[in-house]
Amino acid sequence: MSKHSFGLPLLFLMGLLPGLMFAQQDIFGAAGLVSPQINEDNSVTFRLKAPKADTVLLSGNLHVENAFSPITYQMTRGEDGIWTYTTSPLPSELYRYNFVVDGVRTVDPSNAHVQRDVANISNIFLIGGGKAEDYKVQDVPHGTVAYRWYDSSRNEKKRRLTVYTPHGYENGTSTYPVMYLLHGIGGDEEAWLGTGRAAQIMDNLIAQGEAEPMIVVITNGNVAQEAAPGMGSNGMPQPSFQLPNTMDGKFEETFGEIMEFVETEYRTEGTKAGRAIAGLSMGGFHTANISLNYPNTFDYVGLFSSALGVRSPEATSPIYQDQDKKLRQQMENGYELYWMAIGEDDFPMLLKGNTDFRKKMDDMGMKYEYLETAGGHTWNNWRDYLVLFTQRLFK
Amino acid sequence: MSKHSFGLPLLFLMGLLPGLMFAQQDIFGAAGLVSPQINEDNSVTFRLKAPKADTVLLSGNLHVENAFSPITYQMTRGEDGIWTYTTSPLPSELYRYNFVVDGVRTVDPSNAHVQRDVANISNIFLIGGGKAEDYKVQDVPHGTVAYRWYDSSRNEKKRRLTVYTPHGYENGTSTYPVMYLLHGIGGDEEAWLGTGRAAQIMDNLIAQGEAEPMIVVITNGNVAQEAAPGMGSNGMPQPSFQLPNTMDGKFEETFGEIMEFVETEYRTEGTKAGRAIAGLSMGGFHTANISLNYPNTFDYVGLFSSALGVRSPEATSPIYQDQDKKLRQQMENGYELYWMAIGEDDFPMLLKGNTDFRKKMDDMGMKYEYLETAGGHTWNNWRDYLVLFTQRLFK
Repeated sequence: MSKHSFGLPLLFLMGLLPGLMFAQQDIFGAAGLVSPQINEDNSVTFRLKAPKADTVLLSGNLHVENAFSPITYQMTRGEDGIWTYTTSPLPSELYRYNFVVDGVRTVDPSNAHVQRDVANISNIFLIGGGKAEDYKVQDVPHGTVAYRWYDSSRNEKKRRLTVYTPHGYENGTSTYPVMYLLHGIGGDEEAWLGTGRAAQIMDNLIAQGEAEPMIVVITNGNVAQEAAPGMGSNGMPQPSFQLPNTMDGKFEETFGEIMEFVETEYRTEGTKAGRAIAGLSMGGFHTANISLNYPNTFDYVGLFSSALGVRSPEATSPIYQDQDKKLRQQMENGYELYWMAIGEDDFPMLLKGNTDFRKKMDDMGMKYEYLETAGGHTWNNWRDYLVLFTQRLFK
Repeated sequence: MSKHSFGLPLLFLMGLLPGLMFAQQDIFGAAGLVSPQINEDNSVTFRLKAPKADTVLLSGNLHVENAFSPITYQMTRGEDGIWTYTTSPLPSELYRYNFVVDGVRTVDPSNAHVQRDVANISNIFLIGGGKAEDYKVQDVPHGTVAYRWYDSSRNEKKRRLTVYTPHGYENGTSTYPVMYLLHGIGGDEEAWLGTGRAAQIMDNLIAQGEAEPMIVVITNGNVAQEAAPGMGSNGMPQPSFQLPNTMDGKFEETFGEIMEFVETEYRTEGTKAGRAIAGLSMGGFHTANISLNYPNTFDYVGLFSSALGVRSPEATSPIYQDQDKKLRQQMENGYELYWMAIGEDDFPMLLKGNTDFRKKMDDMGMKYEYLETAGGHTWNNWRDYLVLFTQRLFK
């Protein structure tokens, strides 16, 4: 141990070692085992020490173009009991993966970087040099990410949301525009910050001058929840796609409480020109409905792989009444941008829902922009869409 | 599917199902498999479906009294390929565990609640009804948790810290006292919020009237880092105990930048009577040094399992010079509380370091309170100590 190499004194380390059982397995026991290893050509080598296992698979969204369904790769056992797999060179992206050891899905013990998406815990890694540079923490001024609680009297609970304030907000006095950013089914107020990389994307686009400094409010669209699983007073339920009251109008009906909270607590512009709303999948459905039902409130609307056309036949909320009339009113009130994007490999029902909605807009002469990309119903697309949409706002 | 039971329309679910590969494994494939299941008598049943595995172990800190080293339990294979283990009734506590499948440490695929501690990803669960009620999210007013960045010109980097502001801070005008809360070796500005449950503890103690409303600033004591692993501009390095410049005085030397940031950006009292500092292990060592080297700054000092007596013999920082003289000065300047706690099963070197330090204080007539508890160098103890220390502050 060379002088000044380690802040940890040798004696201290020796004193701790006998007890470092947790640590030994990952830090010391796995010494020398690097996984994932990003090679010079952007191929990636995965390694797992599993001398007693019969089969080890790598499972991941390693094909960007259609990443919704992870692909499974057979890993190869070396004589040392270390299983390996090396991919072909990968394009710049944020990737998720797992190992499957004798049939059991697991995380990579050599990689502490994990991300929860609904109930799935996956490892992540990032290939830079391209678009994923926007998803990295770069050496640029950083905004603040705050987890806040508001009183939702109409849902009879305290509820949590996440607020990104751009660098300089806290020690300035000027007002800022606001983008409300909504998650998909099974998601929550942490999803856009995790797999969505929204804080990194905002930091980077603002630092590059590509996006205006703005406040981003990331809501929880499941009004049956106070907060993301584990962060509410109902303990630690397993996250689920099957929550009550997600697409029955309740979130849209009570969205005004959130806007009131934000405009009271933050220095917002408080104008239509200073408000955007966007969401993915179920959040795109919420976005369309909110922009319809809060007339003249948003100048910018973004539907990312929006779950249009899948409304529950049981829903009777006033949110869903007179939609054509409300849409015509939205058109007549005017707006700066109505932006829709979806992947060509998305679910047929969603593609049809978006096509039908666009036809309705076309028939009434309502303006929108439509982008059809490669890929499916994936975070890869939603990060792309956030990057594109955000650059169009408040200019 | 009964009316109004699910917000997710059946048709939508059917449309999504073919692609829900990730989800199927955890949500649909694992249907009916509950793990961990907390039984009526607070025994806990763990389950893992692993029909192809030869051995499955449960590894966890399930014995509270000496939880640093996880204990391994053999799980039993059922004819359905589901392995189970049921503990004896467990006392109220926050617990961590993993499975070990054919020699590979893994998380429980039926439990999405995981916590990173240094490089270890473990599942967590909580047994209520006792002290762990303080660690739960309760239906009480919640403070805000904000991840912020400050410019550390003396470390030549932007650095991240976490700030807890109590409920009511944002829309009030009064000033608040501040507690600086420091992590141990291998930790970062996320550790006290994760395994440490600091936000829940503060919410609950303040709501009960047991602690004064205060701002809590959770720093990153590794000045070689901008932020927790993955949150800095150096990418996603594997977390490590072996970082440079952790115990060489650099953090203590530059701590003034943090106080200046906090007292500029927040409505603090800005007085000795309104400042506390506490830390665990390495953070206790930092705490002792900071309270010595910033004279007349803190009225409350808390050393939790403090790494006293393990200073690097190579460190030459002025922080470490004239310590006896500085300690006498600290005594003469006066303070409200100098509080030390350590577990009787902690590392001998740390127990000796704390004993030697107390002897020095005794010899010069310096007042302190000392608490020796059961258990060792564990988060179980540090959560306890935080609960006890916090109730003594600013009264």
